[in-house]
Amino acid sequence: MTEKTFNVEGMSCGHCKAAVEGELGKLPGVRRSNADFERGTVEVSYDEGRVGTDELEGAIEEAGYEVKA
Amino acid sequence: MTEKTFNVEGMSCGHCKAAVEGELGKLPGVRRSNADFERGTVEVSYDEGRVGTDELEGAIEEAGYEVKA
Repeated sequence: MTEKTFNVEGMSCGHCKAAVEGELGKLPGVRRSNADFERGTVEVSYDEGRVGTDELEGAIEEAGYEVKA
Repeated sequence: MTEKTFNVEGMSCGHCKAAVEGELGKLPGVRRSNADFERGTVEVSYDEGRVGTDELEGAIEEAGYEVKA
C-alpha cells in the first residue's frame, strides 16, 4: 500500500471533502482517502499495482478541484 | 405567491447552495428558491397559505446553515 498527499485548491467545506473522497473511492485500488478542506490536502492510500497518480489526480479534478504541483 | 430573502451564514460553495435549495424544495408550498453563497442570501418564493417563515428557516438550518436576524 502506497500513501500520497496531494495539495488541492478550492475545497471549502464538508461537501467538497465528501465529493473528493467519493470520486477517489470509485477507483479500484484506492483503499482510503482523507480530504482536509482547511489545509487543502488530500491523503490517499492506494495499491500502486492497480491505480496510478494520474488516475488519482483525475478523480480529484473530476470532483471539481485543482491539484497543485 | 410571497417572496422573502433570508441572510444565511456559512454557505461557501455550490454544494452548499444545492443543499439549501434541496431542503427548501422538500417543503410543500415552496415554489422556487435561489441561494447565493457569495452574497450569503437565500431568496424563496412560496405560498404563505401552505408554508411559513419558521418552516423555511428550519429547512435552511436543517441543511446546516444559520439564518441571521
